[in-house]
Amino acid sequence: MTMTYFTEGQSVAEVLGRHGPNVDERLAEVFGSLVSHLHAFAKEVVLTESEWEVAISFLTRTGQLCSDQRQEFILLSDVLGLSMLVDAVNHRRPPGATDSTVFGPFHVDGAPVRAMGDDICLDGKGESCLFTGRVLDLAGEPVDGACVDVWSDNADGFYDVQQPDEQPRWNNRGRFLTGPDGRYEFRGIKPTSYPIPDDGPVGQLLGQLGRHPYRPAHVHFLVTAPNHQRLVTHTFVAGDPYLTSDSVFGVKESLVTEYERLDDQEVQWRCHFDFVLAPDDPGPEGALGA
Amino acid sequence: MTMTYFTEGQSVAEVLGRHGPNVDERLAEVFGSLVSHLHAFAKEVVLTESEWEVAISFLTRTGQLCSDQRQEFILLSDVLGLSMLVDAVNHRRPPGATDSTVFGPFHVDGAPVRAMGDDICLDGKGESCLFTGRVLDLAGEPVDGACVDVWSDNADGFYDVQQPDEQPRWNNRGRFLTGPDGRYEFRGIKPTSYPIPDDGPVGQLLGQLGRHPYRPAHVHFLVTAPNHQRLVTHTFVAGDPYLTSDSVFGVKESLVTEYERLDDQEVQWRCHFDFVLAPDDPGPEGALGA
Ligand SMILES: [Fe+2]
Ligand SMILES: [Fe+2]
Repeated sequence: MTMTYFTEGQSVAEVLGRHGPNVDERLAEVFGSLVSHLHAFAKEVVLTESEWEVAISFLTRTGQLCSDQRQEFILLSDVLGLSMLVDAVNHRRPPGATDSTVFGPFHVDGAPVRAMGDDICLDGKGESCLFTGRVLDLAGEPVDGACVDVWSDNADGFYDVQQPDEQPRWNNRGRFLTGPDGRYEFRGIKPTSYPIPDDGPVGQLLGQLGRHPYRPAHVHFLVTAPNHQRLVTHTFVAGDPYLTSDSVFGVKESLVTEYERLDDQEVQWRCHFDFVLAPDDPGPEGALGA
Repeated sequence: MTMTYFTEGQSVAEVLGRHGPNVDERLAEVFGSLVSHLHAFAKEVVLTESEWEVAISFLTRTGQLCSDQRQEFILLSDVLGLSMLVDAVNHRRPPGATDSTVFGPFHVDGAPVRAMGDDICLDGKGESCLFTGRVLDLAGEPVDGACVDVWSDNADGFYDVQQPDEQPRWNNRGRFLTGPDGRYEFRGIKPTSYPIPDDGPVGQLLGQLGRHPYRPAHVHFLVTAPNHQRLVTHTFVAGDPYLTSDSVFGVKESLVTEYERLDDQEVQWRCHFDFVLAPDDPGPEGALGA
């Protein structure tokens, strides 16, 4: 009787050899790569039983901290650089198109559509800033009917959804629809850097690695338009001390923008940025944008 | 101004370059290998955003199913072959010593110490079996004062802790202390194969992979003795249909034992197995056995 059993040398083949006859091809590919790398990791470091126990406990606590208000596994993916890597391998954009970056956990669907020039800062805190620019296609032509959905933290470093009792609803959020000139213009505040939530397992991990939890100051944008790829990005404030140590690795050089100091009592800053959209590509990416 | 930002090509170096000055050496080693393999996986399969979302949701649900009664992340580790791999890389036993296997989630500390020959089956279900054998050292000498801690499922395939209202406490559990001859002997039942809990995310994954959730019939043993390494193992029933497809990969050929049919009204089976302990090794492994 010849039987094959699990051995250290054949561990991957043993696990992957168990699949049934009709397994989805893509699932088999992803699962196979995952098991290969997981086993290679455990062998490479000779993972001890007590380290394995620490890992089980870490993952359990991470899952149990997740709620409607908080997603600790996304935070874990972010600080491991996985979220940015998934962004990178899925958004190999054509030259000239604006770079994308992480979506983050603080977007809210359905922000009010506002008129050009409106102020999205509703709590009166922070230094006022005029945001201007255009939505363009790869040929440099303005995009008509684009939606610029913007969200940022307030002057204390919190998004409205983190402080539902302290901030007005939709504070520092809004949607702006472009006309034939592709222009957008609104008032908001110069954003401030803030720490990601660091009172859970992910914060403990950052502490043990000697890493700070801060993100450099940024404004989030989701730009959509018919026949163009959805763009998820930020603009970052030039000169921010955390630009090269963003806790979630979201910074790209092309997204760092200058804030121009204005000689104006009411509006202290101006930030100009043009979004360049890539043409639609009717693949899985298009489906995700739905 | 030269700044380095996250790129697909340099993703691992960027994440690992962020460590502070006084990071624990072993943490840095394990974290470094983990990040390298995680990024290699995401690049190799070109993980899509929707697949990443499925993974985040899977891990979240796995954590949220964990409780005092259930550890879904251990189950995940088990079905990925990781638990057996950790066992394998940490228990490279000397030739002649009994092989170890997974501990499993159903051991309970403090089972009653019983007299040799006692019956551990308290619910009257199943086919009675006489378990006999010796605890030996590598030289074949009997080990005096060894503790043989045994646990198994009942005839319906459930451990007592899974059915606290239906089974007597300590059903099919007990500890037996050897004398100078190293012998142990007790009555129990011929065990039955059973499915691991499959109503959660891990069960869904097994279903998608076309894998069944069953473990071949086995009896758990934890054998300890002064000056010897702690042994965590099972014996498996020869001929079980799941021997080569154990859902947690726990079977080793040396642990498959023959059950001898007896011509006895009261006791239908006999199973003989000698445990051979490796000498103590005062390393981290000794500490874990505490
Ligand atoms: Fe943000
Ligand atoms: Fe078991």
